[in-house]
Amino acid sequence: LVEIPITFIGAGNVAWHLAQALDAAGHIVQEVYSRKLESASKLASNLYNATPTQSTDFTGSKARVFIISIPDDTVESISLQLQLPPHAILVHTSGTLPLDALTAHKSIGVFYPLQTFSKYRELEIQQVPFCIEANNEDTEEVLVNLAQSISNTVYLVSSAERKVLHIAAVFACNFTNHLLAISHQIMKKEGLEFSLLKPLIEETINKALGSQIPASVQTGPAIRKDMKTMQSHLEFLKNYPTELQIYKIISDSIDKMGFKINS
Amino acid sequence: LVEIPITFIGAGNVAWHLAQALDAAGHIVQEVYSRKLESASKLASNLYNATPTQSTDFTGSKARVFIISIPDDTVESISLQLQLPPHAILVHTSGTLPLDALTAHKSIGVFYPLQTFSKYRELEIQQVPFCIEANNEDTEEVLVNLAQSISNTVYLVSSAERKVLHIAAVFACNFTNHLLAISHQIMKKEGLEFSLLKPLIEETINKALGSQIPASVQTGPAIRKDMKTMQSHLEFLKNYPTELQIYKIISDSIDKMGFKINS
Repeated sequence: LVEIPITFIGAGNVAWHLAQALDAAGHIVQEVYSRKLESASKLASNLYNATPTQSTDFTGSKARVFIISIPDDTVESISLQLQLPPHAILVHTSGTLPLDALTAHKSIGVFYPLQTFSKYRELEIQQVPFCIEANNEDTEEVLVNLAQSISNTVYLVSSAERKVLHIAAVFACNFTNHLLAISHQIMKKEGLEFSLLKPLIEETINKALGSQIPASVQTGPAIRKDMKTMQSHLEFLKNYPTELQIYKIISDSIDKMGFKINS
Repeated sequence: LVEIPITFIGAGNVAWHLAQALDAAGHIVQEVYSRKLESASKLASNLYNATPTQSTDFTGSKARVFIISIPDDTVESISLQLQLPPHAILVHTSGTLPLDALTAHKSIGVFYPLQTFSKYRELEIQQVPFCIEANNEDTEEVLVNLAQSISNTVYLVSSAERKVLHIAAVFACNFTNHLLAISHQIMKKEGLEFSLLKPLIEETINKALGSQIPASVQTGPAIRKDMKTMQSHLEFLKNYPTELQIYKIISDSIDKMGFKINS
């Protein structure tokens, strides 16, 4: 392991997990910056020897890599405020922002963990895929080494590819969560326990992910072209106009896609 | 355990798992009926002492409970062909069909395992919720006992409730699978490995199911009202017209639902 001193700009969910994982791997986190000193202190107190700070002047810092991990819409403005030491590498952890959001600095990169983080949920960081991008080869090498010291799966991913990844993740994760929310809402309104569906949901996901090709394990009335059942569902959903729309459009899409994706 | 002799009408995925679980629990399966004798024989050969048959005349059978487990649209017609012994209980295993699909017979019920079955996937039957319905109390008691001998979670569920369950399952499972299929398709077309998303998908589901209220853990551009990101996604999706529609309608629905479901 090459130890790389690091500073975190931000102390939210992603910083919380990354800082502790990198610190535990032997890269000493030097500073934790947050607008709220309390947040910075809370994270720093969980690290080996990190100093919490509210200052954006890091000209005296020993860190080599500065990791910005704050909401997307604040990354560009904070990057303009940061004063970094020579040879510093500045990266962000966003799945959405392009590399050139950091363009005011010389050596820049993206250090994007493809996972959803909650502060109080344990996570096996070794299983999290890291997507790395950099504006020069030296920077890329440092970032790949850094990521490989905490994760088994590290990929070089361009900004264009990262955008595709993010869109695919919106469908597979954000939208999937919303379908579960709709399902929960219908069950609740009709006086049924959502937890009844848990084993079925878990097995559905396991089957889809195990199959390699989710379309090949599609089940339900739409793929069976079971019009009678679909008609009775649409009848029921008259009281749920938004869900009715979603039911129609996704059923149509299932019918169109069919099982043909196997090639 | 009260041993209940059983006969299976059908030898598909559901019959495959149920027959073996019930047989293993000590309820001797007497006969396995299938239109294809080969299918009936294959399942029967995995059971303690079952006879495969193509005949619908069961007047000489020792079975008490007859479990129809065949495609929904064939249940009613087979139930009219069946000749059962006196005191027989006839049930189906469908999530969709009403109890009265079996109305030609005297003691009837529904024995619905709320799970998706594949022949060659092992399954912990103890974790599968069973939804029971019957047209009289004696029948209900027999079916509840039967279900409890193989599962930890057995519920009495009316035909109306079962319909709601099924609709909720279409959203949470069938439609969720389709979103994964869309995500897979986009990744593949753009030359990226779908497996990259697996850890994120798994964590999303764990978080949603762990939260009790999926809407409370909604993430992504729609819930953040991040118009800039959504605009760039819609731009990209111009080459995917169906997916574009789905993106719009689900994003709108996420925005409408918000986090307000917590009550």
